[in-house]
Amino acid sequence: MNIGVLGAGQLGRMLALAGYPLANRFTFLDTTGHPSAGIGDVMIYTDQHHLLDDFLAKVDLVTYEFEHLPVALVQAIEEVKPVYPSSEAIRICQNRAEEKALFDRLGIPTPAYRIVESAEALEAAARELGTPVVAKSVTEGYDGKGQAVLRDPGEAAEAWRSINHPKLIVEAFVDFVREVSIIAVRGREGEVAFYPMAENLHVDGILRYSLAPMPDLDESVQQTADGYIRALLDELDYVGVLTLELFQTRDGKLLANEMAPRVHNSGHWTMDGAVTSQFENHLRAIQGLPLGDTSARKPTCMVNVIGQEGDPAAILAITDAHLHRYDKSERPGRKLGHVNLVAESHAELLEKVHACAWLLPEAPEARFSFEG
Amino acid sequence: MNIGVLGAGQLGRMLALAGYPLANRFTFLDTTGHPSAGIGDVMIYTDQHHLLDDFLAKVDLVTYEFEHLPVALVQAIEEVKPVYPSSEAIRICQNRAEEKALFDRLGIPTPAYRIVESAEALEAAARELGTPVVAKSVTEGYDGKGQAVLRDPGEAAEAWRSINHPKLIVEAFVDFVREVSIIAVRGREGEVAFYPMAENLHVDGILRYSLAPMPDLDESVQQTADGYIRALLDELDYVGVLTLELFQTRDGKLLANEMAPRVHNSGHWTMDGAVTSQFENHLRAIQGLPLGDTSARKPTCMVNVIGQEGDPAAILAITDAHLHRYDKSERPGRKLGHVNLVAESHAELLEKVHACAWLLPEAPEARFSFEG
Repeated sequence: MNIGVLGAGQLGRMLALAGYPLANRFTFLDTTGHPSAGIGDVMIYTDQHHLLDDFLAKVDLVTYEFEHLPVALVQAIEEVKPVYPSSEAIRICQNRAEEKALFDRLGIPTPAYRIVESAEALEAAARELGTPVVAKSVTEGYDGKGQAVLRDPGEAAEAWRSINHPKLIVEAFVDFVREVSIIAVRGREGEVAFYPMAENLHVDGILRYSLAPMPDLDESVQQTADGYIRALLDELDYVGVLTLELFQTRDGKLLANEMAPRVHNSGHWTMDGAVTSQFENHLRAIQGLPLGDTSARKPTCMVNVIGQEGDPAAILAITDAHLHRYDKSERPGRKLGHVNLVAESHAELLEKVHACAWLLPEAPEARFSFEG
Repeated sequence: MNIGVLGAGQLGRMLALAGYPLANRFTFLDTTGHPSAGIGDVMIYTDQHHLLDDFLAKVDLVTYEFEHLPVALVQAIEEVKPVYPSSEAIRICQNRAEEKALFDRLGIPTPAYRIVESAEALEAAARELGTPVVAKSVTEGYDGKGQAVLRDPGEAAEAWRSINHPKLIVEAFVDFVREVSIIAVRGREGEVAFYPMAENLHVDGILRYSLAPMPDLDESVQQTADGYIRALLDELDYVGVLTLELFQTRDGKLLANEMAPRVHNSGHWTMDGAVTSQFENHLRAIQGLPLGDTSARKPTCMVNVIGQEGDPAAILAITDAHLHRYDKSERPGRKLGHVNLVAESHAELLEKVHACAWLLPEAPEARFSFEG
């Protein structure tokens, strides 16, 4: 089975590493001009139709590791080869307004929001929701770009200019206790498996730590999240791994932030901490193979390596530390790799997390909500 | 770090899969004309010196996954780039007489044996050791080729003709309870880590099952095996993974059968059953990185897929089953992949082993010594 992957970054690389043992081969179609997968066949797409034809001739089915793709391209591919998940998932995830409307339709709670198409409407929305609010372009946003925080409705004109997009979503701030994510996988026959939820720490809009399972998570909260993501999976007749990022509020409620139609950084802990990794389960799903067990083996924390590498020897000297480098050059804010730390208990895990953070030049302090 | 690998079979493939996360790249030099790694850069060596120069120009250090290599080739490579483990390990492992002499020198017990250089000497040895005996050519033996069993000293002339080699080793049969192996890894500074011993089931000279840890293994037996392999590692100033296959006799004694200067089929269970796999630890060792924890996570059994594939969907439906396919075409006796089964208890593990064997067309019955 030759699997075509749209996108050729580290997620594609890790898909391939999980897929070789299943006798899969990989052909990547990069649309950015900067592929970094470093494995399999990599083709760089430049609007040349013969190249797309070559790609399609090589592969048995197509998936993606990157959703900021031209929807028309994915739709064209769908005419020729099976694409999992479908272009509909990409279309919705590319547009925050569509995404929120889907959440609303399925009864998945979100922070209060408004869609605005002018500076005046932005100001009115800020007033109505109560500042601070965050305004985001409905499309093309990625990793905190195209966003502005308004501390006062009077900042609307400036925010509108700086974002420079015809349609924005304005969201009320949420007084959350923690950011969490739920990752699930749905097979071709509609069967679904859920990973234990992870607690995620972001700094400057970039994920830094994901920890799972959470020691203080109420089983009913996991079940609520499972219900939300199942509704999304079923509605989209989704095949593969889907990620839903949520806020957990002080009273234990979950509010959906956004979803990603792919394997996700907050699921990298599964590579060493779960019975079956998110990457393998995505590949199992899209090939119609049985889904693997999503249970956690032990408390696990993923630490992202951002901007600058740590000394691999020092990191690997930590017991049950698993280094995953992406073989990319250093650049501020760039995801260069991650470390999965596995421990017998959460107390021991936190010790390892702090020891590991010490070895990473740009790792911020890790403070999880359950530390009180 | 670009790692040159001599040999390009499934062991090389699995080394590469373990090495990408360490940001290693791989260049394979195949000497058989039939590479199957299917990953990294593969060069086919055909005595062309410029090709060897190209290989050496690409790589930072060299290791191997196949020891049936011209020693002169490895020695020539050693003049240019670091080779771990050294050519001395290959030289000894290619010659059963040298290997046994090393065991003797280090006080590692072996089955009684004689070296013979004529049919007459073979007959005398068979008489002296007591039939049955097994006669093997001292070199070029691989997977049961170049061997004969003598049930009576009178069969010496025929055995001598059929093996057709100027120097044989003749070994007494051992009344063993089980075949076991110990795998250890030695770093560049001489530090050593030992995996839990595995019980191995062979049929027709081909490994079929490896199970670790053994539920009934006396700690003192593990310590004895650790001592034997440590002596070998230190004597050879060895860097990397070394495997020692042994017989365990009824009275609990260990007798060394043979060693392999590389990652080994009987260590494939470590990919899913140990904290750090043999492949990652080999790569850590040869790069001067700290060795990883060799502990077993849970009872694990490796089942080889020989000759014919089983249905991947049925295999992957077993909970905590991990399929490792080598992406090779089917052929009688060929190693096509393996399945690692992980379970909470040995009883549960055996159930999974039997369920898995049922799914593999050519898997023999698995009956481990501890089943009584």
